[in-house]
Amino acid sequence: MADSVKSSKLWGGRFASDIDDLALAYSESTLADSRMIAEDIWGSEAHALMLGATGIIPEADLREILRWLEKAREEFEAGRLKLKPELEDVHMNVEWYLRQGAGPEMGGRLHTARSRNDQVVTDCRLHLRTRLLNAVELIAALQEVLLSIAGAHLDHVMPGYTHTQHAQPISVGFWLSGHAAALERDGQRLQEVFDRVNLCPLGACALAGTSLPTNRRLTAQLLGFDGLVEHALDAVQSRDFVLETLAALAILAADLSRIAEEIVLFSTYEYGLIELDDAFASGSSIMPQKKNPCMAELARSRTGLVYGRLVQALTMMKALPSGYNRDIQEDKPPLWEALDSLEATLRVIAGMIGTARLKLDRMAELPSANFATATELANWLVREHGLPFRTAHEIVGEVVGSLSREGKNFTDLERTRELLAQHDVETTRDMLSELLDPAACMRRHTSEGGTAPEQVARQITRLRSGMEQLRKWAAQRAQAIEDARELTSRLVQSVLEGTPLANTGLPEV
Amino acid sequence: MADSVKSSKLWGGRFASDIDDLALAYSESTLADSRMIAEDIWGSEAHALMLGATGIIPEADLREILRWLEKAREEFEAGRLKLKPELEDVHMNVEWYLRQGAGPEMGGRLHTARSRNDQVVTDCRLHLRTRLLNAVELIAALQEVLLSIAGAHLDHVMPGYTHTQHAQPISVGFWLSGHAAALERDGQRLQEVFDRVNLCPLGACALAGTSLPTNRRLTAQLLGFDGLVEHALDAVQSRDFVLETLAALAILAADLSRIAEEIVLFSTYEYGLIELDDAFASGSSIMPQKKNPCMAELARSRTGLVYGRLVQALTMMKALPSGYNRDIQEDKPPLWEALDSLEATLRVIAGMIGTARLKLDRMAELPSANFATATELANWLVREHGLPFRTAHEIVGEVVGSLSREGKNFTDLERTRELLAQHDVETTRDMLSELLDPAACMRRHTSEGGTAPEQVARQITRLRSGMEQLRKWAAQRAQAIEDARELTSRLVQSVLEGTPLANTGLPEV
Amino acid sequence: MADSVKSSKLWGGRFASDIDDLALAYSESTLADSRMIAEDIWGSEAHALMLGATGIIPEADLREILRWLEKAREEFEAGRLKLKPELEDVHMNVEWYLRQGAGPEMGGRLHTARSRNDQVVTDCRLHLRTRLLNAVELIAALQEVLLSIAGAHLDHVMPGYTHTQHAQPISVGFWLSGHAAALERDGQRLQEVFDRVNLCPLGACALAGTSLPTNRRLTAQLLGFDGLVEHALDAVQSRDFVLETLAALAILAADLSRIAEEIVLFSTYEYGLIELDDAFASGSSIMPQKKNPCMAELARSRTGLVYGRLVQALTMMKALPSGYNRDIQEDKPPLWEALDSLEATLRVIAGMIGTARLKLDRMAELPSANFATATELANWLVREHGLPFRTAHEIVGEVVGSLSREGKNFTDLERTRELLAQHDVETTRDMLSELLDPAACMRRHTSEGGTAPEQVARQITRLRSGMEQLRKWAAQRAQAIEDARELTSRLVQSVLEGTPLANTGLPEV
Amino acid sequence: MADSVKSSKLWGGRFASDIDDLALAYSESTLADSRMIAEDIWGSEAHALMLGATGIIPEADLREILRWLEKAREEFEAGRLKLKPELEDVHMNVEWYLRQGAGPEMGGRLHTARSRNDQVVTDCRLHLRTRLLNAVELIAALQEVLLSIAGAHLDHVMPGYTHTQHAQPISVGFWLSGHAAALERDGQRLQEVFDRVNLCPLGACALAGTSLPTNRRLTAQLLGFDGLVEHALDAVQSRDFVLETLAALAILAADLSRIAEEIVLFSTYEYGLIELDDAFASGSSIMPQKKNPCMAELARSRTGLVYGRLVQALTMMKALPSGYNRDIQEDKPPLWEALDSLEATLRVIAGMIGTARLKLDRMAELPSANFATATELANWLVREHGLPFRTAHEIVGEVVGSLSREGKNFTDLERTRELLAQHDVETTRDMLSELLDPAACMRRHTSEGGTAPEQVARQITRLRSGMEQLRKWAAQRAQAIEDARELTSRLVQSVLEGTPLANTGLPEV
Repeated sequence: MADSVKSSKLWGGRFASDIDDLALAYSESTLADSRMIAEDIWGSEAHALMLGATGIIPEADLREILRWLEKAREEFEAGRLKLKPELEDVHMNVEWYLRQGAGPEMGGRLHTARSRNDQVVTDCRLHLRTRLLNAVELIAALQEVLLSIAGAHLDHVMPGYTHTQHAQPISVGFWLSGHAAALERDGQRLQEVFDRVNLCPLGACALAGTSLPTNRRLTAQLLGFDGLVEHALDAVQSRDFVLETLAALAILAADLSRIAEEIVLFSTYEYGLIELDDAFASGSSIMPQKKNPCMAELARSRTGLVYGRLVQALTMMKALPSGYNRDIQEDKPPLWEALDSLEATLRVIAGMIGTARLKLDRMAELPSANFATATELANWLVREHGLPFRTAHEIVGEVVGSLSREGKNFTDLERTRELLAQHDVETTRDMLSELLDPAACMRRHTSEGGTAPEQVARQITRLRSGMEQLRKWAAQRAQAIEDARELTSRLVQSVLEGTPLANTGLPEV
Repeated sequence: MADSVKSSKLWGGRFASDIDDLALAYSESTLADSRMIAEDIWGSEAHALMLGATGIIPEADLREILRWLEKAREEFEAGRLKLKPELEDVHMNVEWYLRQGAGPEMGGRLHTARSRNDQVVTDCRLHLRTRLLNAVELIAALQEVLLSIAGAHLDHVMPGYTHTQHAQPISVGFWLSGHAAALERDGQRLQEVFDRVNLCPLGACALAGTSLPTNRRLTAQLLGFDGLVEHALDAVQSRDFVLETLAALAILAADLSRIAEEIVLFSTYEYGLIELDDAFASGSSIMPQKKNPCMAELARSRTGLVYGRLVQALTMMKALPSGYNRDIQEDKPPLWEALDSLEATLRVIAGMIGTARLKLDRMAELPSANFATATELANWLVREHGLPFRTAHEIVGEVVGSLSREGKNFTDLERTRELLAQHDVETTRDMLSELLDPAACMRRHTSEGGTAPEQVARQITRLRSGMEQLRKWAAQRAQAIEDARELTSRLVQSVLEGTPLANTGLPEV
Repeated sequence: MADSVKSSKLWGGRFASDIDDLALAYSESTLADSRMIAEDIWGSEAHALMLGATGIIPEADLREILRWLEKAREEFEAGRLKLKPELEDVHMNVEWYLRQGAGPEMGGRLHTARSRNDQVVTDCRLHLRTRLLNAVELIAALQEVLLSIAGAHLDHVMPGYTHTQHAQPISVGFWLSGHAAALERDGQRLQEVFDRVNLCPLGACALAGTSLPTNRRLTAQLLGFDGLVEHALDAVQSRDFVLETLAALAILAADLSRIAEEIVLFSTYEYGLIELDDAFASGSSIMPQKKNPCMAELARSRTGLVYGRLVQALTMMKALPSGYNRDIQEDKPPLWEALDSLEATLRVIAGMIGTARLKLDRMAELPSANFATATELANWLVREHGLPFRTAHEIVGEVVGSLSREGKNFTDLERTRELLAQHDVETTRDMLSELLDPAACMRRHTSEGGTAPEQVARQITRLRSGMEQLRKWAAQRAQAIEDARELTSRLVQSVLEGTPLANTGLPEV
Repeated sequence: MADSVKSSKLWGGRFASDIDDLALAYSESTLADSRMIAEDIWGSEAHALMLGATGIIPEADLREILRWLEKAREEFEAGRLKLKPELEDVHMNVEWYLRQGAGPEMGGRLHTARSRNDQVVTDCRLHLRTRLLNAVELIAALQEVLLSIAGAHLDHVMPGYTHTQHAQPISVGFWLSGHAAALERDGQRLQEVFDRVNLCPLGACALAGTSLPTNRRLTAQLLGFDGLVEHALDAVQSRDFVLETLAALAILAADLSRIAEEIVLFSTYEYGLIELDDAFASGSSIMPQKKNPCMAELARSRTGLVYGRLVQALTMMKALPSGYNRDIQEDKPPLWEALDSLEATLRVIAGMIGTARLKLDRMAELPSANFATATELANWLVREHGLPFRTAHEIVGEVVGSLSREGKNFTDLERTRELLAQHDVETTRDMLSELLDPAACMRRHTSEGGTAPEQVARQITRLRSGMEQLRKWAAQRAQAIEDARELTSRLVQSVLEGTPLANTGLPEV
């Protein structure tokens, strides 16, 4: 049976002997292709309608082809259409189904004026665009979680770090909205990628177009594409849309790995700034006391998966001569794997952060403990004592050094006052108390984009607005795709019901 | 002397002992920073003007600071300002120059309300944006070369390849415009990157903004930025603009490697499709007959350089916690190296293609030699004989197989006719002659984006228009930068001439 | 049911609520772990025997544990033991099986003095070592194919290329044995990797060893390891064996990509040096004449897969603090995927080369066509005319230039003679005929490692001997593993039959 | 002048016009080659001696050649030999020097029976082998630092982490010796790489050997190589030695990044486990209190540099056809950059760790604070109460959960006792006090490779012995290279003094 399938393969005329089993197994792509079955059928329907509309095939053939494509879709939707590896790929599987039903002629008719070269990249773009929209929605969902928590903690102070050392007091709202700001650009990059993905290569045929009077704009419209990849050679040979998708995902993965790293750090006993919910932590099979931030560790690790897939695709494209090369069949596994991994990671991080407990007391206590307001003291010396900043910096540096060696910090106001006096800086305990209070300091940082609650609130408003735009955009694009899908379905139904194509309301393009 | 410089370093107050020489050498960044001297001075001038305008420093101090910054610029432009490694980086070098001239107080004054954390990323963005514009112009220049040659060869036929095997006849114009189409997207990606690069992080200070009444919009305008990286923490901790620059460059490198590969292949004795000009080829020190496509080989190899720099930067960013981390100091070497390499590659490829000789006779002869019009024959069977495509494909496959085994090809019209007749396909020699002529076939592919001269001409027109838009865009952006540079200069001159700041025409923002 | 499994998870005591379904799905590893079921059971048997031998568990318990482990193995071998994702990993699945059969106490007993941290890396090393041996055998098998063909073509001349340009005549034997030489080092690297892989981490427990009186040497011996990863912390936290495996595989992939590239090139119409067998080529669904080297293209493309997996693992390990981190759970998918891909690639390339037809006439004709013997002429001027090499090189360069411009080559002996005479070099036609004959030239290159048949024969003998050593080594190592496997089985059977452990012939270590 | 140099280039005979300046700048390699000047001269001397010894050149010419090579060396050693970019590479520069001095004939004579293809890879291997020995010595030096500190702290307890959470108590000695164990394998890998690097490709000529009666074994011996890369094609086309060097370095970089990460973490205020010496830390230009672990952060960041260089080289080698390709000229920059970076990193980390202060009190205090002895309690329940491990694990998990919710830990012995009693486990306060003491627990882990001081001492002894072997090996190899260098010098001096070659004591091979 497998043999009969093999010998029926669709390019065999020139070949004296059949393909080696090893070679067949090596070259078939049904696993990765199984993601694109619905897309392949849709693409075939649109192509068939175009062939009918342009008179390349007669309407009777069109009807027969569509009948069996619809059956294939039903089989698929019922979970009964499994791709046969011996048929190499999704295209040959769908065509085989058609040939089994409608006879070999119909399979052949459908394949007029197209090639697997343009067909596969069409399927890939159809599937990918939806995944991109999904990714954008998940980014927005994570932003929502971050911004909600941020908005509720504009006044809660915590240490701001540089070099993983206490730098200056910030608020929880400031910290989390900083991550949301980076995610906004991740979303924008995917939007820009989408615009180059959502273009139709179908009709480029093998590489050179065709002498048949096709209408590429019609197919593109039926498939909900925004336009064409016009140049036929470019359409089949280019995979920069794959590379830029993976690049945007790799940058997203980098951003997520930074959030994950902070979850790991901040939930250590030593930091003690957050506690994960049991539902997003793991225990140890040997150490009964453990509560491990395994989801964050895995999120951090999956960064490698995405980087690796980008390197895979870049390597694949290096130095390929023009035209379709079989090498690029391998573009889909890295795409799907990277998307699968990142979608899960976005969900898990959102769940983990959304359920974590912030230990606000510990957060508030730390900035006092380790001189996080030292810059404030230096600024005050500049402002009130007219010292140049460098001199102020040096004085404060020496005060901090002395306190540190004595095991003290700024909460020992008296000793701080004494040390300042040694540098001829006179001040009062009350003055110092207000000046060196981390929360007050955080609130005083009112420069644009700074830590002051009103500034962070402004950032959150701005970021929320961007998030809503992302969502709205994704919803609109998804709707446009759905509309095209329905248009195709409607036309197919009309044809199947016997309506002449001219009366089906086929769009004019 | 080095010691005196070292002990004067600007963060020493807290430190009991000096930095180890090994550690200093390990951590200084003057080599990479030497690209950004002009930018650092400009940034400091803009910052000083803002400090004056907001009253944070008195005008007298402003004047003194600007006087020495202008001197520093003159020294730099005269090639006399060399960065001292023992001063760590460009910022400390410029500040040291100022302190030496105007005294330590002025150095300190200038550093009010900023930090090296926001300063370095400002310098980097200032330098990078100009490099991006330059890269876009070089892409357009290569497109120009490709499209000019393409436009002159719409009727010259050559083999179109898939799987590096003859597929269908195409034209030289079709082939080269295909590469130009990919480059258009490379240009677009850099434009999008530019929009996220040309934003001002200055004023974010160490990570938290400041309690001083800064005006970030003013500084941004003086520096010709389109807007702010508003969120202060985001401004200092994010390097996705570095990652996306390198990603866009890596994709460009991939595209260029494909052109380079074809130059290598097509200039082999076996292909013999092009001959490089002596000025863009190399010989062998041992084999006197050699003419090697070394520039193309090196261009292919440099792909690795760019991919590697992207991986370097991605690795660097993995799992960094928030806030500035010293790790990201290492963001600049990969950027500059990748840009240097690609700019040279773009120029060399343009020069190499622009001077190469196309061997049009050989190109024209090949498609006849190896069945490149077989698809055409199959399409004709569909069109004229009403056969389903698959049946036509099988018949042609068998005809090709027979001819091939007999050492013949379609130029043996008689034998081709006979073999077709064996499949009950009757035709005439004349008919076949016209049908199987590669040039005619190429001309018949009139579908949108196909090989027909009028289609390729349309593509070239479209691509030329895109190329002009890229150029115009780059020129406008360069002009806007130049305008901002001049505005700053004018203001600085006014202040130095004693004009009160309020009367200098400082923009209101 | 899933719930009951979940709530029974083995680390739940400390946890108030159950794991989120999303988090469970994100963190379970049963797909990658399904490769290591046999290894996990073997590891558990060895561990149980050790616990019994050291008196840590009573013999009765040992017997009960082994009874159910053997049942698990039978289930597995019969294809009935499927890993349940809700049980997270292979270890928990096997333990769950044991607990279901022998009761929870026995599951607990078995887990004494081990942790999943040492268990997982033990399983991974057990599985990996066998895969490494397999890879070495496949490398040797490819060498065998290459060397067999090489040995049969010591006298068949073909062009030797540098810069993809004709350089000097070589033989087919010389060409193919060059690839075999690189593969020899690929094999050696895997041998060296094997030596660091085949060490036993079991007994390191979570990270710190144990206070129980374990005997790690005994477990290691039962599992056929060559020794221990002694330091417990090192044993659980290090994954350099994963990185070096992937690195060695990446280099192998690079070497294979070069062979693949040559198959693609040499089977073009333009080169025409080889023809692939139909069984290892593919056709086109649209172009009936095509015979595409798809297997070679895919092999070339899979290079990216392996490079990407290396980058994945390197990224994963970057900057992990010491101790086990959940990140490293992700070490197995890249390993298995890279190995799967390379094993198939090695087989496919061997099949493709072994069945390809060498077009010896075309090979022989090319070196005459494009001056491949020019160096020979220059050497002769040095040898016979006493010219310095550079002068000879210049003269020959000019002769070649002239011939080339005239559309001639060295087969025009008369014109060559004339051109030499213009440089005062007198020679005869016969002399030149012999001197410039590519085959004669190839045979004259008798320097060590050169192209002369006797030299190539010597290389082939040397390489065959290395290949045999690789094979012998792999067979011996496989036997040693098998012996250990049988020893464990024998001991298990003895215990199950009721023999006191002391009488089973347990090795003394 | 540059022009006269250009037109004299050594492969120009065939070329009608000169190389484009852009192309020359793109293709010259003098920057990377400047590392190999001494090696290029040595290689030329050895080659000249071999040519003399085999009678290929007369002794008078040999003498003249050697005279000028020695002059070149003196110029180089005096810092006066700068490579001219317009001469492309180091080989042409040295030959140019010779031609300027001894006349063009001598330059030509020296180039007999070699090519830049074998020459460049010889130079590269000569330079690389010394760098590898240096890297091995630096690894051993870092091991020494780690093991010295480890050996002095066998009894000092600290938390052992898994998942960055407290797992079990370990000792400082155990922690640091774990890193030393990984470094041992890094050293071993470089040793294995060295064995494949230290082989001589010289004499392979362009790719095919030569018809001249060379003696490759003699040259190899004069250059201190262990043997030949025998197969001439393999010798010039393979760069797996570059790939495996970079792979071994990337793994080393990964290991170092983990040490660097721990330095960053452990020197935070929150961990407070170590304090860096001022000489290996940096301050902030704006925050006077900061003491930043910049060297550790940069070491972590440089991981990317090394990974990136590996990816660069892997990309470069992908799909290169056989023979020398100009692409591989780009093999040297990544090698030198990766080595430079790692050598500095090894030194800096050794300096940083060697001078850091361990905060032993804080280390000792932490394991009590967060249940690190929980496993011990579970093990005790197994041992003394006969409970299955899983039951014990569950009981302890619940006790920990309760204490944790009450804000207590095991130092509240009374509450711990009560909670155990609720699970019917009776114990005494004294019993618990001993059982749950972290230091005692650490000492009890006496299994092989465990934390007990005597076990760690044993590991340190073993690792010290490995370290000494690494050092001894490196010293021996360095001596062998030095001996070969001296042998060549002695022979050169003899020839220059007029001794007939036969009387110089030239080795017989």
